[in-house]
Amino acid sequence: MADTPRRRVAVVGATGVAGQQFLVALERHPWFEVVALAASERSAGKPYIEALRGSDGAVRWGCEEPLPAVFRHLSVQAAEKLDLNGVDLVFSAVESAAARELEERFAPQVPVVSTASAFRYEDDVPILVPGVNMQHAVLVKRQQRERNWKGFVAPIPNCTTTGLVSALAPLERAFGLRSVVVTSLQALSGAGRSPGVAGLDILDNVIPYIPKEEEKVQSETAKILGRLEGGERIVPLDLPVSATCTRVNVRDGHTEAVWAGLGRSASLCEIASVLRSFGREFCDLGLPSAPPALIEVSDDPYRPQPRIDRGLHDGMTTVVGRLRADSVLQNGVKFVLLSHNTKMGAAKGAILVAEYLVRQDLS
Amino acid sequence: MADTPRRRVAVVGATGVAGQQFLVALERHPWFEVVALAASERSAGKPYIEALRGSDGAVRWGCEEPLPAVFRHLSVQAAEKLDLNGVDLVFSAVESAAARELEERFAPQVPVVSTASAFRYEDDVPILVPGVNMQHAVLVKRQQRERNWKGFVAPIPNCTTTGLVSALAPLERAFGLRSVVVTSLQALSGAGRSPGVAGLDILDNVIPYIPKEEEKVQSETAKILGRLEGGERIVPLDLPVSATCTRVNVRDGHTEAVWAGLGRSASLCEIASVLRSFGREFCDLGLPSAPPALIEVSDDPYRPQPRIDRGLHDGMTTVVGRLRADSVLQNGVKFVLLSHNTKMGAAKGAILVAEYLVRQDLS
Amino acid sequence: MADTPRRRVAVVGATGVAGQQFLVALERHPWFEVVALAASERSAGKPYIEALRGSDGAVRWGCEEPLPAVFRHLSVQAAEKLDLNGVDLVFSAVESAAARELEERFAPQVPVVSTASAFRYEDDVPILVPGVNMQHAVLVKRQQRERNWKGFVAPIPNCTTTGLVSALAPLERAFGLRSVVVTSLQALSGAGRSPGVAGLDILDNVIPYIPKEEEKVQSETAKILGRLEGGERIVPLDLPVSATCTRVNVRDGHTEAVWAGLGRSASLCEIASVLRSFGREFCDLGLPSAPPALIEVSDDPYRPQPRIDRGLHDGMTTVVGRLRADSVLQNGVKFVLLSHNTKMGAAKGAILVAEYLVRQDLS
Amino acid sequence: MADTPRRRVAVVGATGVAGQQFLVALERHPWFEVVALAASERSAGKPYIEALRGSDGAVRWGCEEPLPAVFRHLSVQAAEKLDLNGVDLVFSAVESAAARELEERFAPQVPVVSTASAFRYEDDVPILVPGVNMQHAVLVKRQQRERNWKGFVAPIPNCTTTGLVSALAPLERAFGLRSVVVTSLQALSGAGRSPGVAGLDILDNVIPYIPKEEEKVQSETAKILGRLEGGERIVPLDLPVSATCTRVNVRDGHTEAVWAGLGRSASLCEIASVLRSFGREFCDLGLPSAPPALIEVSDDPYRPQPRIDRGLHDGMTTVVGRLRADSVLQNGVKFVLLSHNTKMGAAKGAILVAEYLVRQDLS
Repeated sequence: MADTPRRRVAVVGATGVAGQQFLVALERHPWFEVVALAASERSAGKPYIEALRGSDGAVRWGCEEPLPAVFRHLSVQAAEKLDLNGVDLVFSAVESAAARELEERFAPQVPVVSTASAFRYEDDVPILVPGVNMQHAVLVKRQQRERNWKGFVAPIPNCTTTGLVSALAPLERAFGLRSVVVTSLQALSGAGRSPGVAGLDILDNVIPYIPKEEEKVQSETAKILGRLEGGERIVPLDLPVSATCTRVNVRDGHTEAVWAGLGRSASLCEIASVLRSFGREFCDLGLPSAPPALIEVSDDPYRPQPRIDRGLHDGMTTVVGRLRADSVLQNGVKFVLLSHNTKMGAAKGAILVAEYLVRQDLS
Repeated sequence: MADTPRRRVAVVGATGVAGQQFLVALERHPWFEVVALAASERSAGKPYIEALRGSDGAVRWGCEEPLPAVFRHLSVQAAEKLDLNGVDLVFSAVESAAARELEERFAPQVPVVSTASAFRYEDDVPILVPGVNMQHAVLVKRQQRERNWKGFVAPIPNCTTTGLVSALAPLERAFGLRSVVVTSLQALSGAGRSPGVAGLDILDNVIPYIPKEEEKVQSETAKILGRLEGGERIVPLDLPVSATCTRVNVRDGHTEAVWAGLGRSASLCEIASVLRSFGREFCDLGLPSAPPALIEVSDDPYRPQPRIDRGLHDGMTTVVGRLRADSVLQNGVKFVLLSHNTKMGAAKGAILVAEYLVRQDLS
Repeated sequence: MADTPRRRVAVVGATGVAGQQFLVALERHPWFEVVALAASERSAGKPYIEALRGSDGAVRWGCEEPLPAVFRHLSVQAAEKLDLNGVDLVFSAVESAAARELEERFAPQVPVVSTASAFRYEDDVPILVPGVNMQHAVLVKRQQRERNWKGFVAPIPNCTTTGLVSALAPLERAFGLRSVVVTSLQALSGAGRSPGVAGLDILDNVIPYIPKEEEKVQSETAKILGRLEGGERIVPLDLPVSATCTRVNVRDGHTEAVWAGLGRSASLCEIASVLRSFGREFCDLGLPSAPPALIEVSDDPYRPQPRIDRGLHDGMTTVVGRLRADSVLQNGVKFVLLSHNTKMGAAKGAILVAEYLVRQDLS
Repeated sequence: MADTPRRRVAVVGATGVAGQQFLVALERHPWFEVVALAASERSAGKPYIEALRGSDGAVRWGCEEPLPAVFRHLSVQAAEKLDLNGVDLVFSAVESAAARELEERFAPQVPVVSTASAFRYEDDVPILVPGVNMQHAVLVKRQQRERNWKGFVAPIPNCTTTGLVSALAPLERAFGLRSVVVTSLQALSGAGRSPGVAGLDILDNVIPYIPKEEEKVQSETAKILGRLEGGERIVPLDLPVSATCTRVNVRDGHTEAVWAGLGRSASLCEIASVLRSFGREFCDLGLPSAPPALIEVSDDPYRPQPRIDRGLHDGMTTVVGRLRADSVLQNGVKFVLLSHNTKMGAAKGAILVAEYLVRQDLS
């Protein structure tokens, strides 16, 4: 039926934390059928469940949700030799270095929606965030034309950026943005599992540094909030963003304390209203993974809390709370936001992007 | 001997977390001898160890260090009836509401050095931070004169303020300060134990709000960094301070991500040097609880970490790391600091203040 | 309609952790409609959400699931004055001391299914565990007859006992039981929240003692596994049970390391099979809260784990793993089990018991 | 001087968690001077601090105590090429597979005291626990004679065994032992750091399995408590030991819930007394790392707790609490013990063994 698109998809990097999240989110997806799993050479030829087994015999499954039975015995292919026959779309969840090579292999044939950073900073590559900058999506046509690709690469941003731009975009549109200061308190799942953060290191502790994270947040935010010029290039927003990124002992859900200087003065009430109404049209497109609202604003001063709020609408809604006036930045406002780093911030966000691309006939 | 002052001290609020920290820090103190313990009516007449026992029979001892044997069987007095005969100095570690009443009872007779907020915002009361604003100490003479007290009340600030002003004071002196943004990631011990933060609430979580904390940080910082005018009043520094205070699952040690706008541009090297050399003269006074340095600057991007760094010089040194230029504030610099909230930020900091007051013959 | 029983229920102790779990489990219950909420005098007259608010303004909601909107504004009654008109059944989730008095007030009029220990050890009171000893349920008729009550009190056991007897009952039936040794690693939610376990006390720690817990496990296990004689009294099983109960830093889900001496030798394969097939008939009764299986046996040596396994079938299935022969007890077997302490072990288990009583026309 | 032995020592596996603990414990050791550090080929030639640096630039230092400055710039050698000239004694802290090869290389020349399991189960190798079975030490002479080695290998046991045998040895001597059941709740540091236990896996969780751990506890306990026959071989104690080993979210300190069946009935008072007086002579030998007592017995039912008690006498004393009669084992007693797994249970325990061997002129 014309109304229900169908795509056969491959998940590359299927054994990692992000890859596992893709499988959970795709298990019963109405549009996307997983027909291939790929991982490193080490996993090639093994049933998926065996590929997850560590040297100690344990199955390294990192999701709250159980391993979907349907993938348990699906044979894993080596990513570098992945057979793309019968694959309409690739979800890439590999590390950045591998992504550079692999995505360049896949994109000439099929669209690649990726959580990796490898292509994010190329001129002809958009960084897509659901409901935030979907107008950037047409940039993939430039990839196809100039690179002579049948597919394309469409990355989503770093998971910390996702929550931040979701809250900043409506402010930029309504009031203009002049400057942003942000401290992130990031969850363990953002660091993956190989090795990720050792229990010994994070117990009773905060780690005040995540390599390259602050740079990513700063440059990706400016690009995502940028203006598409002639359908051909993105002019980054001229916005100083100053981030300090830390790791805390939380499983899922990045908390961010944000200060934003607005282009004009606005009441807290106006700001809350702008946040609450953000993304209505996007949410109304009927995409399977879209939440009813992109942002929820809480009046409870103790919210958002990662353990309580990360699961809202299966992790697809950013929760904003503690909205207050700020005395330092011009027309300043400050708030705390919570974004689910492995749902909207990773696999499920990428799937939602893919749904949009499919719906728009871009993929 | 003239060189070794001796004072007989009482610890009020001796059964709480802060009170316990006082006892640990006073166990073998060369100048101060604990001659009285006081707590609520409920504990009156009990040996100290019995007063610590909860309804379930467990001894509620909250320090890493063991309960000093010398205090185990000392009889606890009711604070409101504390006998001040033979007491030269009171350390007050009670909650703010109780402090208002109790400290007003004690101060007419003896000096009170307090961790409570009750008197912090009075015009004739300094908020003392070791090495930061000791020149404010003379303000206690105004209390004595105007209130007709033999003693006085000398509070230390909120524990989050302590770390912040320790790092800001040298910046203010060397470069001037125009604005401050800070996110705190505060430890559980700051919330005390009755009831404090429930394990259920903080496990796998961040709590983005601590009642009244942000206001305290903002107003105390301006007062502490203020100018003493005519030995009679403090003119708060005209400094916007914008704080977001959060609680994380860490036992001890407040981490703070700080942005500071300076009065003039300064290189990171200059800034580090100013931080490192801060408080030399204070540390050289020979006070028993003073650390060798008030601030240590780390070049390791992964530091400071609460579990690793909080114990430096028995928690009396603020560790600063991740010194970077900031793009948002004018002449901006950003960094992460760690301050031990129950050592320099509470009991032991108060003891160091008392040592200074004694040395200066103010007490 | 005869097939769909309907009962109007009151939840007493509605503001505590267990009470909250009742509300979550009753939100869309097909048989039970919550018509009244009761708590302490302090909460009387307040809308439920306000009754949850602490002195600091925060809503003390302790469940993973959100507060059901339908109860948010329901007015809370004082438990001691609860109006039972129009109430068919009471779920009691109060502390033991209060339960003694309150349940004695309610039971003359309506059946009370309770998580409290107050009545557990009375001769005419069964301690009911779903699928384990439902034959004991008829004992409530003796209560009605002898106490001249229209209702009765039917308590469930301590949450640690629930998991234990669920695994022991099939062993007792198939092989006989001679002795049991058990170490529990219990979750924080078992301790409630007023005050519960302080974050300061459990971070980086194990607490090796839970008052009265070991005695409860020992005596309740013998009673639950006992024989009903003449429909009138329970003869406890002559079974030494030796428990050490500890608290660990886990939110939900009690882990228990169990050793059992059997009445005859049995292979691990036989034992696994007996565990797996346990409770089939009970699960087939069509009770709304019953899981598809009471016990799941895992072959993965790393399972069960509380975070991964506690949610199985919404916490109503006990997961057993690490089944091994034991060398110390005669015909010994050892294993690790996981039981969700606030689901099957508390509210939802009590609801399942109530469903059974209703289905059997006992209630 | 005859009274103060001096030995030049090498630490092999110096970059791992156990190796780091050796360095902390040896920093100011009165007898042992660290003259060489060795690790894997990857670290060879680097200053120690650089060898600790991960691929992300962070220094992987896992001890509470700071990295001793004296070792910071000491050049690390490749273990397989370690130059033993000028080395009197080797402390080996490598993984078991590497230990098999390396210790066989070193022992022909110098004594090796090891935390690795490689040689523990050989007939001519004792497993030494301070104060427990020092009479087994003479077995190293058989190694020297039969293997024609100048040195020998003297391993300490698995860290879980150490605490267990420390408490069992006095019971065996005083009353005889018939059977032992034990559940361990083990700390993260026991799993090392490469990769150790991921924060993601242990947060809000218990892991009920540690590969090979239970077998080690069972066989090592029997050997350590065994009888030395003719100075030539150890006859293991005929003692069934049944263990379940779990991992909990604790940094340091293994908690063990123990049940012991005694050879004769004994009162709790007698048992406590036997435990308390254990190891007096050993502690009186004047060895630098020996604690004042090997066992402390606590009467507080809430003790021992890892965070509070692990540091007692710098982690060299086993704390026993919750001493109770047991109803299952014959003449049964049960208790909870706490042993510091990286102090007495690893590096510092090995150093204490070495001190004994030196004092006895065995090394």
